[in-house]
Parts: sequence; structure tokens; C-alpha cells
Amino acid sequence: MSATSLLGGPIEVVHAGIDAVAEAPRAAGAPVTVVDFRPPAGGDTRRMALLSELLSGPAAREIDAANARALARLLASRPHLVAIGVARDVVPGMADDLFLHAGPPVTWERMCGPMRGAVIGGLLYEGRAKDADEAERLAASGVVRFDPCHHHDAVGPMAGLVTPSMPVFVIEDRGGERPGTRTFCTLNEGLGKVLRYGAFSEEVVARLVFMRDELGPVLAEALALRGPIDLKHLMAQALQMGDEGHNRNRAGTSLLFRELAPAVVRATADRERAARVLDFVNGNDHFFLNLSMPMGKCLLKAAEGEPLSSLVSVMARNGTDFGIQLASMPGRWFTGPALNVRGLYFPGRTEADANPDIGDSAITETAGFGGFAMAAAPAIVQFVGGSAEDALAATRAMRRITLGPNPGFAIPSLGFSGSPTGIDLRLALERNLLPQINTGIAHREPGVGQVGAGLVTPPWEAFHAALEAFAEHVRASRA
Amino acid sequence: MSATSLLGGPIEVVHAGIDAVAEAPRAAGAPVTVVDFRPPAGGDTRRMALLSELLSGPAAREIDAANARALARLLASRPHLVAIGVARDVVPGMADDLFLHAGPPVTWERMCGPMRGAVIGGLLYEGRAKDADEAERLAASGVVRFDPCHHHDAVGPMAGLVTPSMPVFVIEDRGGERPGTRTFCTLNEGLGKVLRYGAFSEEVVARLVFMRDELGPVLAEALALRGPIDLKHLMAQALQMGDEGHNRNRAGTSLLFRELAPAVVRATADRERAARVLDFVNGNDHFFLNLSMPMGKCLLKAAEGEPLSSLVSVMARNGTDFGIQLASMPGRWFTGPALNVRGLYFPGRTEADANPDIGDSAITETAGFGGFAMAAAPAIVQFVGGSAEDALAATRAMRRITLGPNPGFAIPSLGFSGSPTGIDLRLALERNLLPQINTGIAHREPGVGQVGAGLVTPPWEAFHAALEAFAEHVRASRA
Repeated sequence: MSATSLLGGPIEVVHAGIDAVAEAPRAAGAPVTVVDFRPPAGGDTRRMALLSELLSGPAAREIDAANARALARLLASRPHLVAIGVARDVVPGMADDLFLHAGPPVTWERMCGPMRGAVIGGLLYEGRAKDADEAERLAASGVVRFDPCHHHDAVGPMAGLVTPSMPVFVIEDRGGERPGTRTFCTLNEGLGKVLRYGAFSEEVVARLVFMRDELGPVLAEALALRGPIDLKHLMAQALQMGDEGHNRNRAGTSLLFRELAPAVVRATADRERAARVLDFVNGNDHFFLNLSMPMGKCLLKAAEGEPLSSLVSVMARNGTDFGIQLASMPGRWFTGPALNVRGLYFPGRTEADANPDIGDSAITETAGFGGFAMAAAPAIVQFVGGSAEDALAATRAMRRITLGPNPGFAIPSLGFSGSPTGIDLRLALERNLLPQINTGIAHREPGVGQVGAGLVTPPWEAFHAALEAFAEHVRASRA
Repeated sequence: MSATSLLGGPIEVVHAGIDAVAEAPRAAGAPVTVVDFRPPAGGDTRRMALLSELLSGPAAREIDAANARALARLLASRPHLVAIGVARDVVPGMADDLFLHAGPPVTWERMCGPMRGAVIGGLLYEGRAKDADEAERLAASGVVRFDPCHHHDAVGPMAGLVTPSMPVFVIEDRGGERPGTRTFCTLNEGLGKVLRYGAFSEEVVARLVFMRDELGPVLAEALALRGPIDLKHLMAQALQMGDEGHNRNRAGTSLLFRELAPAVVRATADRERAARVLDFVNGNDHFFLNLSMPMGKCLLKAAEGEPLSSLVSVMARNGTDFGIQLASMPGRWFTGPALNVRGLYFPGRTEADANPDIGDSAITETAGFGGFAMAAAPAIVQFVGGSAEDALAATRAMRRITLGPNPGFAIPSLGFSGSPTGIDLRLALERNLLPQINTGIAHREPGVGQVGAGLVTPPWEAFHAALEAFAEHVRASRA
């Protein structure tokens, strides 16, 4: 077959169309996966040639070796929660006139509704505007600058807004080759009307004030008393307990709560204040998301800088564009349009209400959990109408585009095999298979909030742009 | 086939011995279960006749209807944790000279080592003896009476000792046909050297004193402030999070901790005291076991008293005898010898160190979780050398001897089907299949403690004795 000889590597046998061929083994109870057959790289001649070069040309072995090193460094990283600080004080490059947001760079003019809503809420929270109208005028006037979270080693769910006075988790690598690497994320607000989904009502701002004045300081003191928390160890346990670390974080939140609660009590003289903080964390099963995300960012930063690696080190969306980065070219974005999410909507909401895909939370899939560990959390596929078997199939599919399993993230229902980790740009293109991302869905208008949750992929455009640039980069590096 | 005509009911096709017959579908990926074939009731002619009568005689439909009602009542029960009290004050029939123990009745002379060790520890803890020698003399002298926990609507893990001054959880049925039904259990001590495994050193007694003076009162006040906790709801979540509620209780413990911690803070003026209590609960992933057990007892009490039901309502072991009861004859024991546990031993320990099966914790399997929900907790079979597939097979096997699924206890890896619930004495005998129980293993000598964990079944003798009595009971009831 031409595709095989062209690419020179093993191609998995897929069943391409004739249903009767699949019926016999299926009737006998054997698992059969029927996929649409498409030639590698979508059949585009130029991209097929580039891909062939990268998979079987003279640089292929060097790329393989670079990927193996990048994966090994990711696996050796040990992200710990070491502190809770204020963004302005601890996030590198943060400034009083700077707001960080999810995804690749975007101007106010191109910002989607929920991100505009979050910016309005951020201006109200920071006391820079009296009402939404004033905030909108200020935002358009350039009074604050906008920068992606990823440009500051931070990540943020949904709109991902980080403003100067917000408390942030500080994650530090305590293992691997680059101990001391730090990443950052705000604290999770809970569900309902929240800033990250673009809501900015008084209730939203009041909660942010509580988080700044009470939640952040109390947890910061408790953590200082208790000492750093090993997030990889905690995530490993959560994967044994039905979480996948993106759309389901009940176990991670519970285990974190257990770690922090005794120290919250010891560190806080005012017991009603301590109890309010514990109530807030206990009331939000997504609290751990804002730790699983910067943990993932920390793991991926460990993999970055391997000059010939085709490992995808960032996937992030601003609600308008979807951007990816490669470990070989940190900081360089390859983008395409953010897609619509296939999902389940809250009562009274439909796809017509939905904003396209948004948020830095795809860092979880990029780091080898979230949608890639779906088999650990069948409750999520049930939510969108699937079965436990679909959850296993989703994780098995991601093995086809990743560099290897993470033995530290064992999945019980797959015989305790490690979660598939490290997306190889080349494999995704060769196998015409995009990463699967679990995500929430924001209303497309500013000020509304969440309308559902579901599944999404990156746009092919981002992967095609990355292929062109990576091929050029490999040629230049070896010249 | 004679067994079919004899019993008149459907018999599942089992593969009985010729391996080649099973190879073809297995090679095609179809699941094949190979079991040893034995005729019903072990082939004993008299028992086969009794069983045939109960399965297809004139009373069979009445028994089926009684079982359906018993199961419906079990499923409608809503056990809540409503209080924490002192055994002497809240356990019905408790007295200052009474010690409760696990399993069916047993005299000091016939007590196994770990139960004797626990009695010695209980006498030291209650201040009735100065040392182990004096305690042993006192125990043999009859200064305290012994009674099974089950005779007082209580359950206790391993030795199951309840002495008058111990704090106990009070569980109350808030649903079903008999709201107000109460059951009881002590608080879990943790692992290592603990009374329930027969240890009685100073460390063990000091911990019991802490539990009496600090843990019990602090949690009691917190619970009073917070209000009752729906245990069935909590258990349902824990089954989605890798627990089976017997040998794995990490999720249940975590969720309970979240529920109680804010109230502990609010109810306790001394914050170091509050923190010590939180540390103790957080330090013990088995803390929820002592709630899953009395929850199971409460569910089963709801099923009791259905005059023609063959539902097994109690399975309990005192380390010498294994006893069962039926919902149709509450309070009447049918016993056989406690068996040895197939398990994994701690370093330096072997089967030669092990006491036979002990504890009331088999109430979890009796109520349809624990070993019956093994598919929810594959980590346990991995611990004893099995695979995730073995865990699924264990739960599927228990469907063959139970009355139906518990839709409230959904198991994700089995397509969210309910855990198999309500052992039918007749089905176990017809299918020659005993309930599978997960359990810990105690050292056979007093004063040592835990040596391992593993799997065990009841002895057939208990089921045969129950068959004889139930057949007689049915005849007498219909005469």
C-alpha cells in the first residue's frame, strides 16, 4: 500500500468501510473499531511529503531520540504545590496594567463573548471600573494590556483571566532535570455564575473578593504550615478514584481537602474564617482542576527545549483561536479556529448558545490525562450519552498518537496500564487522529456563564501549521 | 439433564471441563467462564430433595414473592449517620458487665487468639485489670458476659469488641417501611497494632482512650451541628471512586471527612483538639469501614421479618465459627467452622501465622457491596495478584446467587449496572457458589495484630444447616 511505503513506518490495520468484513468478529464478541479511512496528513501531497521526511528521512532517528528524551524528562518531573501568592508578586512579568487570558494571543477586538465578559469582571474586581459599560470602554481603550497565561508560565481554565490582585497557586518542580521550574494558576471559583465562564455580576465579583481576602491568605498560611504537596502523587491516586483530572476532579479535590484541612485549623485563629474556607473548598468538586492544570504545565515545561522534538507541549484556546506549541520551539504558536464542542447542554440551553472551545485546560490532555485518561472516569462519557466501553476506547485511541504510557498515572480499568502521554505531532498527522479534549461550554455572550460540557478536538489547521514550521525547523537545525 | 428437571428452574450453561470447547469463542475474544461442575447442594440426595421443594414445590412462588418484598425493603432503606454516642448509653441491652464481639455466640473457652487479645485489651481499657495476666484471669472467671454484636443491632470489624465506654456511631433508617430502625458500630482505630486485630499493648489502650475522650466527643458535637449524613448516598459516590466498602474505603473516608471537617472546626473551641481529630481521621483510609458496616446492617434489618424469605440477612464470624441468619428467621444462627483466608501476607508473615476468618464485616457482602462490588475496586484484586478482569468476573459471579441489582450502587466498569444484592440461600446451593468475602487477616495469637488481607467464603456447613431449618420453617409456616 502506498501509504506504508511512503511513510516507511508501521501503519495499524483499520477497517475501512465494508461493514460485512467487521460483522463476523463483532458477532463473536471481538472488539472491532471502524474508522473513516483517510490518507495521512489528510491526503495533501505537500504535507504527505513533509511527514514522510520527518517519519523516515535522515532526521527521523534524531527526532525519535529527542522525543524519547522529552518524554523521559516529562515523566521525571515532580510538580509540588509549594505556595499560594498574589499574581502581581509571584507571576513572572506580571504588572499592574496586565491581564492574562487563556489560549494564544488575542486582541480585545477579536475576543469572544465570554472572554470579554471575564475582562469586564476583572476590571470591576480590580476596582478600575464602576460598571460594565465603563469596563467595556476601558478594555477597548487599551488601559490594560492582554497577554496569554502561557507567556508567563501560567494556565487558566475557560477565559483563564488572571488579574494582578488574584491569589495564585505556585507549583514547583521538585524532581527531574530542571528542579525549581515554577508554574501558576488562579484558585477555582466553583460552578454557576463565575468569571471564567464570562459572568461578571456582583455575586461573581464578591466571590473574587472573598477569594483574595480570605481563601487565598488562609490556604497560604495552612500550606506554609503543612509544607509542599506532591501533586503527581495526588493525581495518581485520583486516577484510581474515578477522576481524569479535567472534567472530573472530585477525588483530587477530596484528597487535597484532607491534606489541607488540619493545617487550615492550626493556622487560623478565627475558627469561623477557617470553617468558611473549608466550606468553600468542600462545596466545589472542581477545586483540584486549578492544580491539575499547572501540574500538567509543569510536566510539559520539563519536556520543552529538546531541539528536535515533535512533542506537542501546549494546546490552548482563547475562544476564537486554538493554538498549539511544540517542545522544540517553545513560545511559538500554531493556530486555527476554535471548534464547536459536542456536548450536553443544561436545561433550556442549546448549541446556538455555545461559544466555541475556550480555555487552557487542554493542558491536561497535552500532559497525558484529562480526555486521554477517560478510561479512568467513565462517569464523564455517561454524562454525554456514552458507555463505559466508549471511555476505554477513547483512552486506547490516544495510545495511537502518543509517545508512551505514564507509569505514574495507572488506569485500573485498563489493567493498570499508564495513561497515554506525549502527543507526537507526526503520529497525529500520520494516523489522521486528533487529540480528544474534555471541556466545559461557555455561553457565547458576555455575562452569562456555563451552558454545558462535552468533547472537542483541536482544528487540523493548527497541526498543519506546526508541521510546516517543524519541518523547516528540523532542516535549519541540521543544516 | 437431571438437575434441570429436578429443580424445575433455569440453570445457566456452564462449561464443565473440556477445555477445547471453550477455546474457539475465547480465541475470538468472547468471554468464557469455566467452572467446576458439581451437582446442586453438593450432590447430597436429601439436600437436593429439600432444595427442589423450595425451588419448584408449592411454596416456591411464595418464597420468590417474599424475597422480592425483602429486596424491595432493603432497597428502600435510607441509613443515615444521626449521632455518635457512648455504647452504654445508646446500644440496646448494653450493660456495664457486657462485652460485645463479632460473629455468632462463643464462650471464652472457644474464643480464638485475636478475640481473646481484644477482650484482654477491653478489660485494660475499661480499667478492670492492671495487666494482661489479670485480664485473662478475669475473662475466664466470668466477670464480664459476652454477647454477639448482632444481638444488639451492632456490628464490629475483626474481633468486633464493643465495651461499655466506647464511642459508637448511631445509624438510623430515614426511609423505607421501618423508619427509625437503628444500628451501631464503634469508630475505626486505623491500621497497625489495634484492638480489633487482637493487639492490647499500651499504645492500643492509649488510642482507645483518645477515641473515648477526644475523637468521639468532638465528632459527636460536629455531627450534631451539621445534621445527619445520608450514608447510602455517600456509599454510592464511593463506589464510583474505587471503593467497594469493605477492604477499600479511601473514597468513603475522604467524602465523610469533607462533610465533617467544617463542622468540627465550628464545634470545637480548642483548635489543636480539632486538628488532632482531623489528623486522626485523615490518617486512616479505613475510617469509613465502621460506617459502611452498620449501613449494611441497617439495610438488612429492613429486609428482615419477611416470613418466607430465603434471603441471607447476616454473615458473621467470631474467628472460630462462621454464622449466617435468614431474613425469615431473624436471630437464629446457622454455623460452620470459620475458614482460612486466601491472601497476601505482610513481610515475614505466612499462612501459619493466620487466624481463621473473623469479623462482622461480611455484613458488607451480605448487603450487596464489599466483595460483591469488587468490579468497582480492581486495586484490591491487584493486591492479591489478580487482574482488573478478575474483579469484573467476581462481581458477575455474585449475580448468579443474588436476588437483583441495587440501582443505588452503580458500578462504572460494568456499564453502571447495580451491585448484585440479596444472597438467596437457594441460589447459592443450587449453583454451588458461595458468597465471596474480602477481609483482613489477624494473627492467631492474642496481642499481635494484622498479618495480611485476602479473600474467603463461608463454610458450606452453615448453608446446609440453614437449608434444613428453612425447609422445616416453610413447611411449618404453611401447615
